[in-house]
Amino acid sequence: MTSRPPSRPATGLLTDHYELTMLEAALRSGAASRRCVFEVFARRLPEGRRYGVVAGTGRLLEAIERFRFGADELAHLRGVVDDPTLDFLADYRFDGDVWGYAEGECYFPGSPVLVVESDFAHGVVLETLVLSILNHDSAIASAASRMTSAAGDRPCIEMGSRRTHEEAAVAAARAAYLAGFATTSNLEAGRRFGVPTAGTAAHAFTLLHDDERQAFAAQIAALGKGTTLLVDTYDVPTAVALAVELAGPELGGVRLDSGDLLVQAREVREQLDRLGATQTQIVVTSDLDEHAIAALAAGPVDRYGVGTSLVTGSGAPTAGMVYKLVARTDDDGTMEGVAKRSKDKASVAGRKYALRRRSASGVAEAEVLGVGVPPGDDGDDRELLVPLMAGGRTVSTATLDDARQRHAASRAELPVAALRLQRGEPAIPTIYEE
Amino acid sequence: MTSRPPSRPATGLLTDHYELTMLEAALRSGAASRRCVFEVFARRLPEGRRYGVVAGTGRLLEAIERFRFGADELAHLRGVVDDPTLDFLADYRFDGDVWGYAEGECYFPGSPVLVVESDFAHGVVLETLVLSILNHDSAIASAASRMTSAAGDRPCIEMGSRRTHEEAAVAAARAAYLAGFATTSNLEAGRRFGVPTAGTAAHAFTLLHDDERQAFAAQIAALGKGTTLLVDTYDVPTAVALAVELAGPELGGVRLDSGDLLVQAREVREQLDRLGATQTQIVVTSDLDEHAIAALAAGPVDRYGVGTSLVTGSGAPTAGMVYKLVARTDDDGTMEGVAKRSKDKASVAGRKYALRRRSASGVAEAEVLGVGVPPGDDGDDRELLVPLMAGGRTVSTATLDDARQRHAASRAELPVAALRLQRGEPAIPTIYEE
Repeated sequence: MTSRPPSRPATGLLTDHYELTMLEAALRSGAASRRCVFEVFARRLPEGRRYGVVAGTGRLLEAIERFRFGADELAHLRGVVDDPTLDFLADYRFDGDVWGYAEGECYFPGSPVLVVESDFAHGVVLETLVLSILNHDSAIASAASRMTSAAGDRPCIEMGSRRTHEEAAVAAARAAYLAGFATTSNLEAGRRFGVPTAGTAAHAFTLLHDDERQAFAAQIAALGKGTTLLVDTYDVPTAVALAVELAGPELGGVRLDSGDLLVQAREVREQLDRLGATQTQIVVTSDLDEHAIAALAAGPVDRYGVGTSLVTGSGAPTAGMVYKLVARTDDDGTMEGVAKRSKDKASVAGRKYALRRRSASGVAEAEVLGVGVPPGDDGDDRELLVPLMAGGRTVSTATLDDARQRHAASRAELPVAALRLQRGEPAIPTIYEE
Repeated sequence: MTSRPPSRPATGLLTDHYELTMLEAALRSGAASRRCVFEVFARRLPEGRRYGVVAGTGRLLEAIERFRFGADELAHLRGVVDDPTLDFLADYRFDGDVWGYAEGECYFPGSPVLVVESDFAHGVVLETLVLSILNHDSAIASAASRMTSAAGDRPCIEMGSRRTHEEAAVAAARAAYLAGFATTSNLEAGRRFGVPTAGTAAHAFTLLHDDERQAFAAQIAALGKGTTLLVDTYDVPTAVALAVELAGPELGGVRLDSGDLLVQAREVREQLDRLGATQTQIVVTSDLDEHAIAALAAGPVDRYGVGTSLVTGSGAPTAGMVYKLVARTDDDGTMEGVAKRSKDKASVAGRKYALRRRSASGVAEAEVLGVGVPPGDDGDDRELLVPLMAGGRTVSTATLDDARQRHAASRAELPVAALRLQRGEPAIPTIYEE
């Protein structure tokens, strides 16, 4: 189903102005060539969340490869930075090393989800792009994971494109799939990332025709009896009866998009069964979030369509990750840990190494971060940082399906309390070892 | 400062799967050629908000012109829809008429912010793209307007790119500017939309150097004494003293990014004045939203930098607008109003005409929506719908600066209670006239 997307534009200007003025000043002071380690982490999870999900890594690696400044970009930057800086940008191609948590991995406060090592000049300018992609996609995946967890074996359908920026919608569909959603409504996500797409009809289709009978007949004629008919435009019991009359027991599904979904799902299930349409599925789609999905667990619902709450991160639309310089060489070439001491925003200096401490039975117990040196592995633990780029070339071969599997495995390893939807503390503690 | 952006790709696939399956079924039933009126409106404002701001219209018109299906898009859609539908899409070019609220205009529950008239086939497929753009950009502009209102004459700086999707960031910078922000950090927004960009340095720049003195000296050498120095990496009073020592009283500004901003701003202002740097500005940038801005009104703050809360709509990340079929022709060619009767989501059938009722002194009093016919104008009122596209061609010549001025004028016309930040009812009632 996937075909090759058209070539995509340079990403160099998806960057904050100050990255380039810093670059200019550092090129002039000579400090631009100091070797640096930048780390991406979240100081905390969104309030009450038990875990976060790393997402966007695959998009990011591709965007870093497109981080260039062509003639048009340089023309715009004339006047923003000086000529030596323009010359540097004209030749820019990221040449450093990147490690990170595998896409789909769960993360916790302080987890170094991405580590960038390069000279200051090549690393600092990536900050905005790195954070934009990881903060957005991780926020969506983190919300999506709670939804698929609440839905259990019932498929979740992503349908929030209309509630977010048109390109964010494509990325959101990808992030949702990674976190276990079955399909998306977004066609571009199908083309660009191979996410399965699905959909049938909206209320407008029913209203377009003279009556519901005409509309349903037209939809069945075009899309087959296996289609899903939207039954709440006028009166639900009337529409359900009509749907089964026209499609027979092979009717694929009916969709409810308003009202009390639990009550209606029970009534509709009873009606469908009475009419012999025992295999016809019930799809519900009205303002669902993970809590509404959980509340419908007791009802005869077959699939959940989720829109607004998915693409807005269900109350946490950004993951709040930061990109911080944690170590750099001095004039002698010695790597030194650095950290600001700002009130309420202090960081831990030095490069971090991370592993997930696990019990003998494989249950996650702690996020162990070694500062400057890898923490000791007791044999059941799992290393979290994997190589993503080396010398500016992508070395990760992980696909979106790999990320989806990684997430399922990582979530399955968490203590059961991690899957509670109520507000609480992170599922495992973060422990620093120096 | 603006240069021509590179040509941008087709937008046809930024669309929900079901738009195209509806199209297929309607082409087959023959109803696809019925003349239709679709309207975009919000059933309600985000909880407690007094008004919303229409934004994204300029981006939308350009995106509709690029709503095409080339060879690559059609190849992907083979299997999604049948051959006659693919043939239709291959020739697709929007050929209808569009009216809307001028970009920057304030809106209220039910306001028909966009009206699309075309046959069903050409209009239905635009739904996802129209809503993605208007819902995102209007959410950002609506939050931004509250911030610039709270800031009064003090400039607001948009710097949230890192907290949202990389392309949403560009649109957010545009929407913020429209609602009165002075500058953005986002370089692509500078290139693509001509939004003024600004920025100096982050903590990483200070940490890169051996000490704060080296860092400040390097920044001043590159960017001049008029630059803004970040003074909270280590100890604020020490940094302020150093900044004035190095730059003298011509120092442009100092930036505070942590701690209690009101207390610190007062201390820093006193210190700067004592050191003779009476013209040096104080910029604050830590997790501000409209409430924090209002709380700082009493402090000696010169500029506000706003990030996360701006790009996430300050608690309302989507405007919740919908795209509804409100009228269509029947077999005789007569236009008939249509509306679903779904519980809690019922719509008002029929095309709407809108005006802002104003007192003799020019204060907005009501949003008057004429259903099927224009409402009566009492002489002080203002018509709200303007032509945007005719026969598929853009007829609006409004620029981003026009939208910025439109917003300032529209907001100034609202009753003073509209500018209260506390939760409340919409500033003016919506009245339907039939």
